[in-house]
Amino acid sequence: RVFPETVTEDSIEDSIGRPLFVLFRNLAELSEDDSRRLPLLTVLSEMYSRCQRIGYLLLYYLQASTLGDDEGGKIASNGKSQVFKELCETQDRELEAGLLADLKLCQEEDVNLLCWLLPAVYTQFPQVAIGNTALLHLVVSTVDARQLQELVCRVVQGRLVMFRENSFQEVLSASLSWETFEQFCLWQLVTAHGIPIDYVLPILPRLDYHNHAEALTAILLMLKHEKPTAELVKQVLCREVGPAGDMFVVSALRCWCRDHEERLGELVATLLASCCPQASPNKRKRGKTSGNPSAEKLLGHLDRLRSGCRQLYKLDCMQRALQQAQTSCTEAQKNHFSNLFALVELDDPGRGKGRGRKPNHNTKSKSKTYKNVSDTSEESSEEEEVVIKHKQAKKRKKINPVNSDSD
Amino acid sequence: RVFPETVTEDSIEDSIGRPLFVLFRNLAELSEDDSRRLPLLTVLSEMYSRCQRIGYLLLYYLQASTLGDDEGGKIASNGKSQVFKELCETQDRELEAGLLADLKLCQEEDVNLLCWLLPAVYTQFPQVAIGNTALLHLVVSTVDARQLQELVCRVVQGRLVMFRENSFQEVLSASLSWETFEQFCLWQLVTAHGIPIDYVLPILPRLDYHNHAEALTAILLMLKHEKPTAELVKQVLCREVGPAGDMFVVSALRCWCRDHEERLGELVATLLASCCPQASPNKRKRGKTSGNPSAEKLLGHLDRLRSGCRQLYKLDCMQRALQQAQTSCTEAQKNHFSNLFALVELDDPGRGKGRGRKPNHNTKSKSKTYKNVSDTSEESSEEEEVVIKHKQAKKRKKINPVNSDSD
Repeated sequence: RVFPETVTEDSIEDSIGRPLFVLFRNLAELSEDDSRRLPLLTVLSEMYSRCQRIGYLLLYYLQASTLGDDEGGKIASNGKSQVFKELCETQDRELEAGLLADLKLCQEEDVNLLCWLLPAVYTQFPQVAIGNTALLHLVVSTVDARQLQELVCRVVQGRLVMFRENSFQEVLSASLSWETFEQFCLWQLVTAHGIPIDYVLPILPRLDYHNHAEALTAILLMLKHEKPTAELVKQVLCREVGPAGDMFVVSALRCWCRDHEERLGELVATLLASCCPQASPNKRKRGKTSGNPSAEKLLGHLDRLRSGCRQLYKLDCMQRALQQAQTSCTEAQKNHFSNLFALVELDDPGRGKGRGRKPNHNTKSKSKTYKNVSDTSEESSEEEEVVIKHKQAKKRKKINPVNSDSD
Repeated sequence: RVFPETVTEDSIEDSIGRPLFVLFRNLAELSEDDSRRLPLLTVLSEMYSRCQRIGYLLLYYLQASTLGDDEGGKIASNGKSQVFKELCETQDRELEAGLLADLKLCQEEDVNLLCWLLPAVYTQFPQVAIGNTALLHLVVSTVDARQLQELVCRVVQGRLVMFRENSFQEVLSASLSWETFEQFCLWQLVTAHGIPIDYVLPILPRLDYHNHAEALTAILLMLKHEKPTAELVKQVLCREVGPAGDMFVVSALRCWCRDHEERLGELVATLLASCCPQASPNKRKRGKTSGNPSAEKLLGHLDRLRSGCRQLYKLDCMQRALQQAQTSCTEAQKNHFSNLFALVELDDPGRGKGRGRKPNHNTKSKSKTYKNVSDTSEESSEEEEVVIKHKQAKKRKKINPVNSDSD
């Protein structure tokens, strides 16, 4: 075991005092055109092919030898990675494959050393390391809370970059099959890197609430930090209307509804209107705005959102958009979303430009019908998303209560 | 096993068709002054004292029987908790103790049932459940990613409250001894609840980077979302100047420095000035502003922040504050923080009101001295926080390089 248990500058210097490191040292310090270099590299290559450990020990040496080297050091920063690259070449190995294999072995043999090496690996081999999903998986499958803390600290300071926006979709896709703990670590690193939500959302339609709970939870918590925008609302509503257990869309919208009700109403209404073409024959042919969810999907989400967000539907803009949607719907759709369209207060002459909270001027019976619909959905809201109502008929067991016996 | 594997309204209704639940049903539906109620309660109590499982099965029945009960149901919401309370009373058990013991048993015997019950438990027994650290620990030690997702969704929607601001310090303190995974779950719930950072920070001085990595990481990521304010900066700087491995303060400040350099400079300068009384004898006696960090602590943090934030120290406000601090320091402190005070550009006549990025008007030698100090710290910044430089003298092993032999 090379890596010292207690990490100090001295203990690390001591650790690279062994004969093996003399070889590394000479190789690293001889200039590239020095004729004595090739024989050394050949020896090292021979050793490496018999003992793979040589790989990560070289990485360790290169990092440890320049530690606190205030005078600049004899090994320039890119010289460090150069020696390792050459070693890989002697084995006909790609740098990426070599680096990963060596770090994997390091993980198996000395996980503390691996964690100590990581920041240097990302700094020395940025082309290969940054955004590399295999390396990232190695990291999150290795770290404990303390080591994760160290990485997060470095990332937050801007001194360590493990992935970038442009490679993030790939990272995210790969992470979906990782262990829960590993994904929890990843999402802390995502926050540390400050990856904007725009680079996260494209994966949303692919996420399944049953298999990708970690990612959906993390994205939901990201959305909670954001104010609703047309783009965000659209991306969220592009998800399929999932089974009752899939609460993602409803949760995101209800969350926004709590703090940004009017804004959310405007955005949803605009989106709904653009998805439901006006009924006039000339306009009916207009192509769907690209990337928008279908009207059916949108109505499906709004139908599930009814309970708990009643005020949202009373906004003027929402009322108009729902009316327009109703007009452009097929009969089947009108039936299917009858509860949703019941929220349209068609006959109310008292509705003005305001927020629609004025007393209801409908006839008694109308008003009562409307009230019942929403009251019911309000009461059952607690359960309606965990229980799949796959049969319409009630079939509660009729059990004789005590009284019927004793009477 | 009572709880169905596939949760649907029907399967749950079926599950409470067994004879045991007839007893529960009668107890729940008989009015409180009905004389037939006491005998039933006595029977139930007798059963409970022999088979503790009765407790969580009752909780299950009370929830399951009113599921999707659109007509309002015979058991009012507070009636549900009432029956369970009465059962606890018959055992001379506090409600809290009874609830926890029963849910703990439920966790051991059917973890899926526990997760299904949780939202109802928090809703039905808010006084006992909300902010209860033992219950919360039970939750986070139980849930998997999917179950956590469900809780987070409910919390984000505002339909579930597991803890509040006022009880949060207690929750946080308790969580410090939990498993890493459990703490990761907690912090997702914290984000879901939207607990403001003001309720989190008071614990900061007690957190140790070695033992409380989870909390420190989570708080650092919270701070990353915040803009620096006088209060936040003060709270962060109130932490002890930890060992080199404790990167919390440096990370938070560097993170702010990247996006809010000038604002951070103003806030730190104001704080520093208020901690270092003017040198005039009359003012020296002023008491330290309460809650402020000591000047020594503040200088300690600033000393560690030097590398990587050089521009911060060039701000006029920082220069003035550092000068003032230098004047009010003891000789020992001046020596100890000599590198920090070397950043004061005392003799520069060219410094105006600006950001201090003008060319240096110092004499050559002065300028060089200054440059060296900061360059050094810049280069070694990568390592200086992981390596404790506990000896001043270099003691790198002198190994003969190849050349000395061959020459």
